Amino acid sequence: MKRSRKTGLPPGTLMHIGERKAETVRLSVIQYDAEQFSEKEFDTFEAFAQQPPRPESIVWINIHGLHDTDLLRQAGAHFNIHNLVLEDILNTDQRPKFEDHGHFLFLPMKMFFIQKEDKTVSWEQISLIFGKGFLITFQEAPGDVFDPLRERIRQGKGRIRKMQADYLAYALLDIIVDQFFAILEQISDRIDENEEAVLVNPGKEAVSAIHDVKRTLLNVRRAAWPLREMVSQFEKSESPLLEKSTRLFIRDVYDHAIQIIDNVELLREINAGLMDIYLSNIGNRTNQVMKVLTIVATLFIPLTFIVGIYGMNFEYMPELAWPWAYPAVMGLMLFLFVGMLYYFRKRKWM
Amino acid sequence: MKRSRKTGLPPGTLMHIGERKAETVRLSVIQYDAEQFSEKEFDTFEAFAQQPPRPESIVWINIHGLHDTDLLRQAGAHFNIHNLVLEDILNTDQRPKFEDHGHFLFLPMKMFFIQKEDKTVSWEQISLIFGKGFLITFQEAPGDVFDPLRERIRQGKGRIRKMQADYLAYALLDIIVDQFFAILEQISDRIDENEEAVLVNPGKEAVSAIHDVKRTLLNVRRAAWPLREMVSQFEKSESPLLEKSTRLFIRDVYDHAIQIIDNVELLREINAGLMDIYLSNIGNRTNQVMKVLTIVATLFIPLTFIVGIYGMNFEYMPELAWPWAYPAVMGLMLFLFVGMLYYFRKRKWM
Amino acid sequence: MKRSRKTGLPPGTLMHIGERKAETVRLSVIQYDAEQFSEKEFDTFEAFAQQPPRPESIVWINIHGLHDTDLLRQAGAHFNIHNLVLEDILNTDQRPKFEDHGHFLFLPMKMFFIQKEDKTVSWEQISLIFGKGFLITFQEAPGDVFDPLRERIRQGKGRIRKMQADYLAYALLDIIVDQFFAILEQISDRIDENEEAVLVNPGKEAVSAIHDVKRTLLNVRRAAWPLREMVSQFEKSESPLLEKSTRLFIRDVYDHAIQIIDNVELLREINAGLMDIYLSNIGNRTNQVMKVLTIVATLFIPLTFIVGIYGMNFEYMPELAWPWAYPAVMGLMLFLFVGMLYYFRKRKWM
Amino acid sequence: MKRSRKTGLPPGTLMHIGERKAETVRLSVIQYDAEQFSEKEFDTFEAFAQQPPRPESIVWINIHGLHDTDLLRQAGAHFNIHNLVLEDILNTDQRPKFEDHGHFLFLPMKMFFIQKEDKTVSWEQISLIFGKGFLITFQEAPGDVFDPLRERIRQGKGRIRKMQADYLAYALLDIIVDQFFAILEQISDRIDENEEAVLVNPGKEAVSAIHDVKRTLLNVRRAAWPLREMVSQFEKSESPLLEKSTRLFIRDVYDHAIQIIDNVELLREINAGLMDIYLSNIGNRTNQVMKVLTIVATLFIPLTFIVGIYGMNFEYMPELAWPWAYPAVMGLMLFLFVGMLYYFRKRKWM
Amino acid sequence: MKRSRKTGLPPGTLMHIGERKAETVRLSVIQYDAEQFSEKEFDTFEAFAQQPPRPESIVWINIHGLHDTDLLRQAGAHFNIHNLVLEDILNTDQRPKFEDHGHFLFLPMKMFFIQKEDKTVSWEQISLIFGKGFLITFQEAPGDVFDPLRERIRQGKGRIRKMQADYLAYALLDIIVDQFFAILEQISDRIDENEEAVLVNPGKEAVSAIHDVKRTLLNVRRAAWPLREMVSQFEKSESPLLEKSTRLFIRDVYDHAIQIIDNVELLREINAGLMDIYLSNIGNRTNQVMKVLTIVATLFIPLTFIVGIYGMNFEYMPELAWPWAYPAVMGLMLFLFVGMLYYFRKRKWM
Repeated sequence: MKRSRKTGLPPGTLMHIGERKAETVRLSVIQYDAEQFSEKEFDTFEAFAQQPPRPESIVWINIHGLHDTDLLRQAGAHFNIHNLVLEDILNTDQRPKFEDHGHFLFLPMKMFFIQKEDKTVSWEQISLIFGKGFLITFQEAPGDVFDPLRERIRQGKGRIRKMQADYLAYALLDIIVDQFFAILEQISDRIDENEEAVLVNPGKEAVSAIHDVKRTLLNVRRAAWPLREMVSQFEKSESPLLEKSTRLFIRDVYDHAIQIIDNVELLREINAGLMDIYLSNIGNRTNQVMKVLTIVATLFIPLTFIVGIYGMNFEYMPELAWPWAYPAVMGLMLFLFVGMLYYFRKRKWM
Repeated sequence: MKRSRKTGLPPGTLMHIGERKAETVRLSVIQYDAEQFSEKEFDTFEAFAQQPPRPESIVWINIHGLHDTDLLRQAGAHFNIHNLVLEDILNTDQRPKFEDHGHFLFLPMKMFFIQKEDKTVSWEQISLIFGKGFLITFQEAPGDVFDPLRERIRQGKGRIRKMQADYLAYALLDIIVDQFFAILEQISDRIDENEEAVLVNPGKEAVSAIHDVKRTLLNVRRAAWPLREMVSQFEKSESPLLEKSTRLFIRDVYDHAIQIIDNVELLREINAGLMDIYLSNIGNRTNQVMKVLTIVATLFIPLTFIVGIYGMNFEYMPELAWPWAYPAVMGLMLFLFVGMLYYFRKRKWM
Repeated sequence: MKRSRKTGLPPGTLMHIGERKAETVRLSVIQYDAEQFSEKEFDTFEAFAQQPPRPESIVWINIHGLHDTDLLRQAGAHFNIHNLVLEDILNTDQRPKFEDHGHFLFLPMKMFFIQKEDKTVSWEQISLIFGKGFLITFQEAPGDVFDPLRERIRQGKGRIRKMQADYLAYALLDIIVDQFFAILEQISDRIDENEEAVLVNPGKEAVSAIHDVKRTLLNVRRAAWPLREMVSQFEKSESPLLEKSTRLFIRDVYDHAIQIIDNVELLREINAGLMDIYLSNIGNRTNQVMKVLTIVATLFIPLTFIVGIYGMNFEYMPELAWPWAYPAVMGLMLFLFVGMLYYFRKRKWM
Repeated sequence: MKRSRKTGLPPGTLMHIGERKAETVRLSVIQYDAEQFSEKEFDTFEAFAQQPPRPESIVWINIHGLHDTDLLRQAGAHFNIHNLVLEDILNTDQRPKFEDHGHFLFLPMKMFFIQKEDKTVSWEQISLIFGKGFLITFQEAPGDVFDPLRERIRQGKGRIRKMQADYLAYALLDIIVDQFFAILEQISDRIDENEEAVLVNPGKEAVSAIHDVKRTLLNVRRAAWPLREMVSQFEKSESPLLEKSTRLFIRDVYDHAIQIIDNVELLREINAGLMDIYLSNIGNRTNQVMKVLTIVATLFIPLTFIVGIYGMNFEYMPELAWPWAYPAVMGLMLFLFVGMLYYFRKRKWM
Repeated sequence: MKRSRKTGLPPGTLMHIGERKAETVRLSVIQYDAEQFSEKEFDTFEAFAQQPPRPESIVWINIHGLHDTDLLRQAGAHFNIHNLVLEDILNTDQRPKFEDHGHFLFLPMKMFFIQKEDKTVSWEQISLIFGKGFLITFQEAPGDVFDPLRERIRQGKGRIRKMQADYLAYALLDIIVDQFFAILEQISDRIDENEEAVLVNPGKEAVSAIHDVKRTLLNVRRAAWPLREMVSQFEKSESPLLEKSTRLFIRDVYDHAIQIIDNVELLREINAGLMDIYLSNIGNRTNQVMKVLTIVATLFIPLTFIVGIYGMNFEYMPELAWPWAYPAVMGLMLFLFVGMLYYFRKRKWM
C-alpha cells in the first residue's frame, strides 16, 4: 500500500504501508537467563500473553509479517507502546532513527540481504524495541539472518546469556550492520565485472548494469547514513536501559557504520568513473570507425572519378587512342593511391 | 503580479504578489470544543467579526483567495497581526519559515498537489497563524485537501476535539507534509517511465521529460528544505501556545520532513543518471549507424572502382579481349568482398 | 584602475579602484525630522560643511562619483571615519560586509540594475555609513533607484520621518535587496527563452546565451552570499545606533536575502540543465543526419556497383547479349532496394 | 578471508580478515634506555614472555604476520588488551582511528608503499599499541620501512633513546605519514605522463591509466582523511601516557596529514581534468576526420556524377559529337573543383 | 630535492626541500626606529651577529636562498627558534599556517608572482618570524616585491617607522596578499582570451590553455584557503607581540583574503564553463560537417546510380534508342535534385 493513502487520517492510525511479504504473522519467542533457555512459537498475541515470563529472564519476541495490525495493537497495549511508534513500525518506508521512550528504546532500521533466486540486493524494515527484560523484533518477512545468534543463545556460547536485553539489542544490531558488508562485497564484485565489460565490450547492457549498481548504492547509502546517526545516538544515550559495558560494543558497531559509509562513497565514485570510461570508449570507437571509412572513401572516390573520365563516350577524346594512355592512367592512379597512404600514415590514422 | 513591482514601496505595503487563483475571497469558519461544533461561511470579515466566539472553544478560520487586501487588513487588525506578517502572507513567493510573535505563531509554507486536468505538479502558498483559541489558514485557492480533517472534527473522531489550537495546527501541518509523499510517488513513477523511454526509444521527448522532472524536483526541494527547518524550529519553540503533548506529534512530522528530503535527493540522483544513460545511448546508436555505413561503403567503393577501370574506353586495353578476363575480375572482387567481411568480423563490427 | 596598482602602497592610501562612472562628483543632501524637510545639492564638501544641520534632525548625504578622493578625505575628517573605511569605499571590488566602528556603522554592498540601453545586468558599489543623526550613501554613478524613497520622505508617507537614521538605512537596504528580485525575474525570463531556443533551434548563439546567464548568475551569487551574512550581522549587532523596533524590519530583509540565494541557486541548476539538453540535442541531431546519410549510401552504393559491372567493356560477357538480362538486373536491384528499406524499418531508422 | 564471513559470530571472535601476506609470524623485540640497547627475535610469544624486561627501559615489539591468532591472544592477555581491540588489529579493513584504553593507546592505520616488482601502489594495515614502557607494532608483512628508525635507536642518534614510548610512537607515525608523500610524488609523475599521453596519443590505454590513478587516489584518500582525524585526536588526547614535549611533534605530523589531504584533492582535480581533455580531444579528432571525408566526398562525388552522364549510351546525345565538348566538360569540372576548394577554405575547413 | 628523501630521518633534521632558486644565500638587514635608519648586507650570519642592534629599534633581516642550512641553524640558535620551525622554513612545500611560539610568531606562506620571461604564474615560499624588536623573512630567491616597502621605511613615509615589528609583519603580509590580486587579474585576462578562442577557433590549443588556467587556479586556491585561515588566526591571536591598533589592519588583510578566495572560485566556475562551450562547439561543428556531407552524398549518389544504369552495355535496352530518352532522364534527375533540396530545406539542414 502506498504511503499517500494515509493522507488525512488521524495520527496513530495503524495501517501497513509497503508490500506484504509474509503469508501469516507469527511470533517466535525465546526466553533465557544464565541458567535456563526456552523457545516457543505462537500464532496470536493472546497465546503469548497468557504465559507470564520467568522473573529476571530476558524475553525475545520476534514478530514476522506486519499486516496484522490487531496483533500489533495488542502488543502495543501489553508493552505500553505509543501509537506513533506502532505507526512507524508499520511504515516500511521509515527512516532509521533512535528514540528513547523512557521505559523502552525504539530503533527502526533497514536490513539488506541478497535474494537467493536472482542475486539482486533487497531489503526489509526491521524494528527493535527493548526495555527491562524484553526485546521485540518486527520483521517484514521470516528470515534466517538471526539464526547464528539464536544458536549462540541456545548453546550459551559467549557472554550473551549473562547479559541484559541491551546486549541482545547490540548483538542484533551487529548482525544487521555486518549484512551491509556482504552487500558491499557483492556490489564491489559487480563493479569489477562492469569494468571488464566496459573495456572489452561496451554496449547497452553495460550501461544498464552500471545504472543498476548506482541505484543499489543509492539505496544502501540512504539506509547507511541515518544508521550511523542512529548508532551514534544509541551509544551516547543516557538511558538506564543501556549498561556501561555494552556501550563499548556499540562503539564498535559505530566504527563499522562509518566504514560502511566510507565504502559506499568509494564504490559510488568508482562506479561513476565507469560511465566516463564507457563514454570515452564509445567516442573512441566511433572515431576508429570514422577513420576506416574516411581512408577507404578518400582512397577510392578520386580514383573512381578518374576512371569515370575515360569511360565517357565523347567522340573527340584523343587520349583514348594513344597506346600508352591506359598504363599511364593506371600508373597515375597507383601514384595517387600510394601518396594517400603515405599521408594517412603521417597523420597516424593507420 | 511580479515581486519587483514592490521595489521602493514602504515596508508593510499590502499587495498580492502572484497569480490570482480564486474568483472571490471567502471565509469558512469552523468552531468547536469537546462538546459542540458549528460551521459557517462568510463573504466579508465584518460579517464574521460580529459574531463573538464561544469562550473556551477553538475557531478555525480558513480564508481562500488572497487578492482582497482590505479583508486581510481587517483580519490583521482584529487579531493584532503585524503588517510585515500580512505582507509575507500576500507574497506567494515567501520562503517557509517559523515566527513566534508572542500572542501568535506564524507558519507560511508551500502545499504541493497534482492538478486534476493534466496531472502536472503544482503548488500554492498556505500560511498558518494560530494563537490562544484561534487558527487562521490563508490559501491561494479553494481546495479539498483539508476535507478529511474537517470530517474528523465534525464527527469528533480521534482526540482533536479535546485539544487546543496547536494540535489543529499540527493536524494541518501533517496533511501538508503528507501531500509531499503523494507528489514524490508520482514523480517516482514518471522517472520509471522515463527510464523505460530512454532505454527503448530515446529522443527529444525523453530529454524534455527528464528535464521536466528535474525542474519539478528542484521546486519540491526548494520547499522541502526550509520546511524541515520550520518544523524543527516549531518543535523546539518555547512558546506557551505549544503544549508538551503536541510536541511529540510535531517530532513525528519532523521525521517525515527529513524523509521527504531524503527521497527528493534520491530521485534527483536517479533522474540525473537517466540523462547519462540517454547520452550514452545516443553515442552508442551513432556508433552503430556509423558501422553500417562504413561496412557498406568499404565493401562496395573499391569494387566500384575496379568495375570502373574496365568501363574505360581506351583503345589499347588488352585485358578486355581476353576471354577469361571477365570471370577473373568477378572472382577477384568476390575474394576482396569476402576478405573485407572477414576483417569486419574480426574487428567485431558485425 | 586595476586593484593590482595599489600593491606596496601604505595602507589607507585613497585611490579609486574601478571604472569612472560619473562625470562629476556631487553631494545631494536631504535633511528631515517629523515636521521639517529640506533638500539641497552641493559640488564641494566645504559648501555642505558650512551649513550646520538642525539639531535632532536626520541628514542624508548622497555622494555619487568616487574619483574625487579629496572630497572623500574631507568627509572622512568631518565624520571621523577611519582611512581603511574610506579605502573600502573607493575599492569598488569590495566584498559586502558589516562593520561596527562605534560611532558609525559601515555597510558596503553591491546594487544590481538592468541597463536601459541593452537590457544587460550591471552593478555598482553602494556604501552606507550611518551614525547618530546622519547617513551617507556613496554611489559610483547617479541613479534613480532611491527616488521612490526620497518621495516618501518628501511627502512624509509611512513612518520614516518619525524614525532615526537606522530606519533610513533599513529603507535603503530594502530597496537594494528588492533590486535583486527584479534582476532574477529578468534572468528567469532569459532562461525560459534559452530553453525554447535550445529545443527548437540549438546553435552557437544558444550556447553563448546560456553561458552569459551563467556568468550573470555567478556575479549575482557572489554579491548575494556576503549580503546575507552582512544583513545577519547587522540584525544581530548590539550597536546602540540600531533601535529595537528596526530590528524586526531588518529580519524581514534577511528573509529576502535568503530567498534571493535560494532563487539564484535554483536558476543556476536550471541553467546548467539547459547545457545538458543542448548537448543531447546536438548528439541526437548528428545521429539523425547520420541515419539519412547511411540509408542513402547503403541503398545506392551497392546498386551503383551492379550497374558498373554491366558497364564494363569486356568482349566476352555473355549476359550482355541475353535479351532478358536488362529487366532481370533491374528486377534484382529493385529487390535489393526493397529489402534494404525493410531492414532499415526493422531497425527503426526510418 | 572476506569480512562477511564473520557475520553472526560473537563479538571479539579473533579471525584474520584479509590476505595472508607473511609466511610465518615473527616477533622482533628491541629494548633500550638512554644507556643500553638490545635486539632479539622470537618465534613464539612464550619465548618473549619468559624474559622480563629491564625496569625503566622501553620495549618495542614488532609482530609481522597476523594469521597466528593464538599468538595475538597471548599478547592480548599479557598486556591486558580487550578482545575488540585484537579484533580490530586482525581486521585489515579497519578504518584508522585513535582509542584511549587507559593503560594503553591504540592506533590502527594504513601504510602505503610502492611495490618493488611492478611499481604499483599498495598498502598494509599497521596497528600501534603503546603504554608505559612498551610499544607493539602489528604489521601484515615484514618490511624495511622502519629500518632507519631502528638504526637511529641502535646508534643513539637524536633524542629518541632518552624519551618515553610516546616519542617512539610519534617517530613511527612520522615515518608512516612520510610514506604518503612518496606515494603522492609517484602518482603526480604518473599524472604528468598521462597528460602527455592524452595530448599526443589518446587511446584506450590512456583512459585506463587515468582510471587507475583515480582508483589509487580514492584509496589514498580513504586512508588519509581518518588519519588526519586520528592524529588530531592523538594530539588533543589527555592521556598521561602522552608527554607534553611530544605533543609539539605530533602537531607537526598533523600539519603533514593536512598537507597530504590537500595534495590528494589537488591531484584528484588534475586527474579528473585529464578525462575532460581526453574526451575533447577525441571529439576534436572525429571532427578532423569528418572534415577530410566531407571535403573528399564533396569534391569528387558531383564530378563523378558529371562524368557518369557522358558515359551513358543513349544514341541521341548530340554533345558527344561536338569536338570541343570534352575540353568544355573538363573545364567545367575544374571550375567546380576550384570553387569547392574556395568554399572549404572560407569555412576554415582546410 | 624531493620531500620523500626525508623519510626516516630524525625530526628537526634540516634539509632544503625544493628547487635551489638562488645562487648564494645573503642577509640584508634594515634597522630603524622613529628617528634612525640603517641598511646593510651580510654574507654570513656571524658577520651580522657581531653587530648588536640599537635598543628600542626594529631589525628586519631578509634571508634569500635557503640551501645554506648552517646559516639557518645559526640564526635559529641566535633567536632561539625550535628546529621543527626551521624544518618548516626549509620545506618549500609547507602549507601556510600561523604558530605562536611565545617569544616569536611564525607565519610561513606562499607568494605568487608573474615570471618576467614567459608571463607564467610562479610562486615561492616566504616565511615570517617576528618577535620583540626583530622580524626575519626567509625567501627562496631574491626579489623586488618588498622594494616599495623598503622605500617607505627609508623615507619614513606613513606610520611604519613609529610602529613595532607587528606592523612591519602586517605591511609584508599586505604586499603578499595584494600579489594575489595581480595574479588573478592576469588569469582573468587569460580566461577572456580563451573564451574568444573557444568561440572563434576551437582546437587543441584552446583545451590546453583552459587546462593550464585550471591548474594555475588550483595552485592559487591551495595557497589561498590556508592563507585565509592563517590571517584569521593571526588576527585572533592573543600574543602580546600583536598590538591592538595593528589588529584592525590585519582584519583588513583578512577581508582581502576572503575576496581572493571568492575570486578564485568565480574564475574556476567560469573556466570550467569554457570547457563545456568547447565541447558543445565541437559537437556543433561535427554536426555541421555531417550535414554538408549528407546533403552532397544524398543529392548525387542516387543520380550517379541513374546515369550508371544507362551506361550499361546490354544489347537489348530499348530506351537507349529512343530520341527523347536522354532529355527525359536529365529532366527526371533535375526533378529529383530539386525535390531533395526542398526536403533538406524543410528539415532546416540548409
